[in-house]
Amino acid sequence: MENTLYFTFFVAIAAVLMAIFMLRNALSRPEGDKKMKAMAHAIQEGASAFLKEEAKRIALVAIVIAVFISLIFRIRYGVVMLAGAFVSEMAGLVGMYASTHTNVRVAQSAKKGLFEAFSTAFSGGSVMGLVVAGFSMIGLTTVMLIFKNSFAFSAVYSIRTTGMTHIHGISVVDGVMIVSAYSFGASLIALFDRVGGGIYTKAADMAADLVGKVEEHIPEDDARNPATIADNVGDNVGDVAGLGADILESYVASIISTIAIVMFMAIADKNMTSPQYYKLLYLPIAIAGGGIVAAMLGIGFVKLRRTTNARAALSSGNIFTGVAVLVISAIIIYFFKIDYVFQGKFVLARGTANIWRPFFSIVFGLVAGLIISKISEYYTSYDYKPVKHLAESSQTGVAINITGGLALGMGSTLWPILTIALGIIGAYLASGVYGIGIAALGMLSFVAYTVSVDTYGPIADNAGGIAQMAGLDPKVREITDGLDAVGNTTAAIGKGFAIGSAAFAALSLIVSFIWSSAQRTGQISLNPVINMIGPYTIVGLVIGAMLPYFFSALLINGVSENAFLMVKEVRRQFKSDPKILKGESLPDYNRCISITATGAISKMFLPGVIAIIMPFAAGYLLGKSALAGVLLGGLLSAIMIAIFTANSGGAMDNAKKYVEMGNLGGRGTPLHDATIVGDTVGDPLKDTVGPSMDILIKLMAVLSLFFGSLFPVLPFFMK
Amino acid sequence: MENTLYFTFFVAIAAVLMAIFMLRNALSRPEGDKKMKAMAHAIQEGASAFLKEEAKRIALVAIVIAVFISLIFRIRYGVVMLAGAFVSEMAGLVGMYASTHTNVRVAQSAKKGLFEAFSTAFSGGSVMGLVVAGFSMIGLTTVMLIFKNSFAFSAVYSIRTTGMTHIHGISVVDGVMIVSAYSFGASLIALFDRVGGGIYTKAADMAADLVGKVEEHIPEDDARNPATIADNVGDNVGDVAGLGADILESYVASIISTIAIVMFMAIADKNMTSPQYYKLLYLPIAIAGGGIVAAMLGIGFVKLRRTTNARAALSSGNIFTGVAVLVISAIIIYFFKIDYVFQGKFVLARGTANIWRPFFSIVFGLVAGLIISKISEYYTSYDYKPVKHLAESSQTGVAINITGGLALGMGSTLWPILTIALGIIGAYLASGVYGIGIAALGMLSFVAYTVSVDTYGPIADNAGGIAQMAGLDPKVREITDGLDAVGNTTAAIGKGFAIGSAAFAALSLIVSFIWSSAQRTGQISLNPVINMIGPYTIVGLVIGAMLPYFFSALLINGVSENAFLMVKEVRRQFKSDPKILKGESLPDYNRCISITATGAISKMFLPGVIAIIMPFAAGYLLGKSALAGVLLGGLLSAIMIAIFTANSGGAMDNAKKYVEMGNLGGRGTPLHDATIVGDTVGDPLKDTVGPSMDILIKLMAVLSLFFGSLFPVLPFFMK
Repeated sequence: MENTLYFTFFVAIAAVLMAIFMLRNALSRPEGDKKMKAMAHAIQEGASAFLKEEAKRIALVAIVIAVFISLIFRIRYGVVMLAGAFVSEMAGLVGMYASTHTNVRVAQSAKKGLFEAFSTAFSGGSVMGLVVAGFSMIGLTTVMLIFKNSFAFSAVYSIRTTGMTHIHGISVVDGVMIVSAYSFGASLIALFDRVGGGIYTKAADMAADLVGKVEEHIPEDDARNPATIADNVGDNVGDVAGLGADILESYVASIISTIAIVMFMAIADKNMTSPQYYKLLYLPIAIAGGGIVAAMLGIGFVKLRRTTNARAALSSGNIFTGVAVLVISAIIIYFFKIDYVFQGKFVLARGTANIWRPFFSIVFGLVAGLIISKISEYYTSYDYKPVKHLAESSQTGVAINITGGLALGMGSTLWPILTIALGIIGAYLASGVYGIGIAALGMLSFVAYTVSVDTYGPIADNAGGIAQMAGLDPKVREITDGLDAVGNTTAAIGKGFAIGSAAFAALSLIVSFIWSSAQRTGQISLNPVINMIGPYTIVGLVIGAMLPYFFSALLINGVSENAFLMVKEVRRQFKSDPKILKGESLPDYNRCISITATGAISKMFLPGVIAIIMPFAAGYLLGKSALAGVLLGGLLSAIMIAIFTANSGGAMDNAKKYVEMGNLGGRGTPLHDATIVGDTVGDPLKDTVGPSMDILIKLMAVLSLFFGSLFPVLPFFMK
Repeated sequence: MENTLYFTFFVAIAAVLMAIFMLRNALSRPEGDKKMKAMAHAIQEGASAFLKEEAKRIALVAIVIAVFISLIFRIRYGVVMLAGAFVSEMAGLVGMYASTHTNVRVAQSAKKGLFEAFSTAFSGGSVMGLVVAGFSMIGLTTVMLIFKNSFAFSAVYSIRTTGMTHIHGISVVDGVMIVSAYSFGASLIALFDRVGGGIYTKAADMAADLVGKVEEHIPEDDARNPATIADNVGDNVGDVAGLGADILESYVASIISTIAIVMFMAIADKNMTSPQYYKLLYLPIAIAGGGIVAAMLGIGFVKLRRTTNARAALSSGNIFTGVAVLVISAIIIYFFKIDYVFQGKFVLARGTANIWRPFFSIVFGLVAGLIISKISEYYTSYDYKPVKHLAESSQTGVAINITGGLALGMGSTLWPILTIALGIIGAYLASGVYGIGIAALGMLSFVAYTVSVDTYGPIADNAGGIAQMAGLDPKVREITDGLDAVGNTTAAIGKGFAIGSAAFAALSLIVSFIWSSAQRTGQISLNPVINMIGPYTIVGLVIGAMLPYFFSALLINGVSENAFLMVKEVRRQFKSDPKILKGESLPDYNRCISITATGAISKMFLPGVIAIIMPFAAGYLLGKSALAGVLLGGLLSAIMIAIFTANSGGAMDNAKKYVEMGNLGGRGTPLHDATIVGDTVGDPLKDTVGPSMDILIKLMAVLSLFFGSLFPVLPFFMK
């Protein structure tokens, strides 16, 4: 079974090789004229300067934490944590290198036609997809191979027989500590990248719009706007690097939480045999490997189809990859022949051994993810009633538009939540709590494909920006706009999977944490219990449910304050040099870039620290039941806010686009103005708040899992 | 101890007598000229027509449910449920009669001066306050006296010794069934009154503003506006009748949940003696009675102070009443000498008998309520930084104003939630889960005073409307505006207590439900456990957390759709009879009233049915753990949305007022326009969504408590 690690390791290497191939493919295309190169260069510089600055700060935090971990636990955990942080950071840097160097080439290729442009953009996007999956799995499998004794059945068996789960309050379940340290490192990067990138991108976007479009009436992406490069940089640091780090973290978390569950189950269940243990332990690794293979096939499938219908290419690629995941998983499951009887409160009550049980969990995960995506498409696309209705109701003004947009988002939580609920029940009935982790992995296993599509979008968007700034033929912009629109629709599917998988992964992390904290008392039960109506749990739930709200407020305020500073700078530049607006002298792009960058980095600090400190505060002061409450309460609010803001913002954005397509009077009408304001309100909701919710809750959960053995059972005042 | 029932019964009678006295006092004032009378008459007619129509529909629902209850349980429960519904409905009708007949008299008194106007308004408002407390306690004590055998220690003792808690799956804890049926009846009225009233008032308000102020530029409350009477009617049905029914329900729920807790504790705890039982059982009744006495003293205190400083009068009245509650409660506690040792997981672990323990819980409740109120004042008053900052940031436009308003509300959840968390821990440490119910009661016991102040506000508001419509001297309007402003500030205190007490009361209802559902298996344990990380509980939590969002969306859409219909009607009237705008012919007020009324009644139905159906669906399909999850998940989202919307809406409203007071350029500036739009967005949030959250969750909880014994332990597919 250990060969699974080698299998996935080599598959991950193959993914990285494919990434290199794709990158070379993208970079082999011509870059265009001098002006285009200059613009692209400015974006590259800005993005890499921000990411490096951000990385420096995060590195400092990460190293402090690593030293702390090494001191209180073992040095290896500190090192592994840094490894997790390193792979995430590297994936972000490489992926963003690809995207910032592909964008200009897409603009140039668009001169030749749609197919060339699409092919270039997809090559560039697939780099991020492939390195996210590749780097993270190379790292994880390497770590597991180096410390393979810690994952051996003998290690678990000795804990099971001696009953010694901890020494001096510190966990001896070394395997769990190792994988959770790795995931913790990835989470740390993801949190800061997501929050920093989210604040950066929206502050630049709002400022560019507020002064450029509204005050000076110059078009979007106009080279005269000092904020325009920052805006384009924002797309890269937010939608490329932030998203990549986020999904990488989800992916790793879903794998390691399943591994942790297996190890604790093996300690608790005296009947689990060595072969059963290894099969359960390595199945997630195998499925991850299989998923990478499926995604590579899917990417190849898209690249080889010489169609000019980008939407059809991406969708059929998606279906192809999904089916490939199912087929490959089925083959893996068949060869694994897991004969473990999932039972107990956490696993199916009247369970019988059936090798297909974990497969059903994968199917439940995949189907749930797919349904959630379709629902969010229904609520946010202008092809359907909700957005059309929202656009129509804007006739009575801004207030009704925004009120309607908020109501739409709130109401849109119904079906996704019922889908998640059914998915949880299904995955659980199939293979217990193990199945919930496996279901999350099912949704995320072909991450290399979904991230490719997610990254392709901002590249096309940036290409359009460069075309505009460099004053290319409007036809070029038309092509890139078309590619961008396709990307938006397809990316919506990725969003559904991101939200769904976050719910499942967070849930399995929370269960793992409860097992981890049970080490304190040496009682790892197959059926762990946290009394929901115990006063400390309730207090934890209430505080946890509040955190995502408070966190969201910090993010929105961060965006507004930075946008405000940028607005002042843009106004200052226009005033001090009137030639800028005439197009006779270039604005100082770098000042804008550095203002947003400094602002985003300073504003990401407090939310980040809160996410790190809260589990400790709750765990130490109020005990493990309260912390379990904080995590679950946080998860509840985070899912709701994530769905609510994503769909509210998406619908308000598309209501505007619907009007701009010429409906209901089109551009320039009061109705159009109302939808523009609505879009601006929706922007920080959908692009800063929504995407940060997943990572907030998963960072808190993985941190709790890692430090679980330290937290007392009761609050400090009850000792 | 049974004498407690008589004590509170007679106190409640005294409150009703005082209400009659106050009503006569208010009605003895002159009504003013013919035009004023006509306007007042139109409001009276409109409000009473709506309330009667609404009552008819609710009566139908209530009777159907009563028959259903009588058939599956016992006829007495059906009858008691109708009694609970009846007292609530009567309190609403009487209180609204007082408010709609006082408003015009306040306008007339204002001609004489501030003191006269204040005195009249407060007399009118106190009628609602006194009947809310009086009627509900007359009803409850009467019911308990009639069925006193069901509350006898012998009844509990026989269950304790035989272990027979249910027959054919139906509860034999008759006392709990009786009080929860009573509370259920009150909840039913509260839900529909709150939702119907909330939709009515905001639809009328928005329509009157959109056509009147924005399109035709006529002032607020202008007699030419066909929607203006409907707008004033809305203040009465929403802010008076809706609020009264809501608070009455909270009040009853906090008392009966404590009673239910005591009865279940007595069954579970074999050591509880008869005297201990009676003391614990009747303490909430005694405190409710003491609270009424305190409130009557407080109301008298305000009436007798002949000050023209309305704000000082109301605030000092508040402090006086709060102190009186503490003193009277301390006396009651001293005489009760409760020597029960609160212990077990639910009650203090290392408890010792101390007669002051329940008193500490009351203090924790009161202090928590007070702090929450002060925090919400800080976030929503223009005297403090947040609102000023919001007004200033509106310089960059509508979008930043609204985004900032939403962020303010989200961020404002931090301190109230931490206060609630500390309050729960404090109340629990003092006297266990019993203490949580008692803490809720502590906050609500002087309801007669807080509702008086809450009702005084809309009366002053209406008086201003009548003054405007009847074209009185602007000085009159100035006086009524001043009274209204004072009412708003003081009412904010009531809001804090409403949210805080709802959290505590809902929590004790949920615990009672869990005991109630434990009857199914005959295992009523002193330390009930619901495993939070069981899959069905988690599914319940997720679904529960979604419900308040979905419910909010329905409410906002209901308001928008009704406002839209009204807008069309107002436009039609202006078009078909141009004399209306010239002031030469009267508009058809009644058509507007009937459109809003019909709309509100039709839109209240779906949210109401969802609140009633959900507990059944969850309980029957997924079992009691899932239902417990639904209730707690619902509570979490409901508290967050309640605080978030109340403070967002309040801050946006006051940011507008801050500008209108002449700050930042004052009226007519683009900044002012931005704040007007913000206020319109905030309106349905703070006046329709926010106030409905409490009752949504409490109705679901009380319904679950009542039907608890019917729900299976496991989901239907696990049988």
